[in-house]
Amino acid sequence: MVGGTDLQHPARDEIDLGDVLFALSAPDRLSIVLQLQQGPLTAARCTADGGPVPKSTKSHMLKVLRESGVIRNEPRGRNRVLTLRRVDLDARFPGLLDAVLGAGAAAATSAVGRSGANLDR
Amino acid sequence: MVGGTDLQHPARDEIDLGDVLFALSAPDRLSIVLQLQQGPLTAARCTADGGPVPKSTKSHMLKVLRESGVIRNEPRGRNRVLTLRRVDLDARFPGLLDAVLGAGAAAATSAVGRSGANLDR
Repeated sequence: MVGGTDLQHPARDEIDLGDVLFALSAPDRLSIVLQLQQGPLTAARCTADGGPVPKSTKSHMLKVLRESGVIRNEPRGRNRVLTLRRVDLDARFPGLLDAVLGAGAAAATSAVGRSGANLDR
Repeated sequence: MVGGTDLQHPARDEIDLGDVLFALSAPDRLSIVLQLQQGPLTAARCTADGGPVPKSTKSHMLKVLRESGVIRNEPRGRNRVLTLRRVDLDARFPGLLDAVLGAGAAAATSAVGRSGANLDR
């Protein structure tokens, strides 16, 4: 069934501001959200900020993001596909996601810049 | 000394996105930030979301907000004055504070509306 899912997702009007802010507050989880900006990805292709993490850690990260309403995690064939709930979040908290993604992307760029500087590039 | 402070505050460029999102993710802490939108308040006049809380709880809330860079907590005479670091936050994370405050105010209004509905108003 297209769009069917075995996991619980909050409806748009159940999405809670505090839950969303908390979900986005961890760099690892924010990194996943940044990866989903361009479109859905299979869970296997999403990576944590610092590279490989234990499967249980990643599973927990995805759970916090899903239960807060930030992402959907749905089965598709033998994969699981992650989707950023941009339309729902924009409707619920106008401007919030763009502000966080903008700040998150800037922070990531700045971190790359700093590590570049450390390499004397 | 005007503007002098005994407590540590991060400089603008040390303010971390994750710390700010975490600080704003708790309704009690967000409630304090909403109260500071109109201007500084003494710590004694700021209240937690649900009313009176133990002094140690309030003290911890203010510590998280201060250490994340969301507020300043400075002595003035015999009082302590809390100030929202709007200019620093707007410079560091454009649009973020307004988006959170807008969503937080809407959530607060909606909660009041719901409790009103429960009273059959």
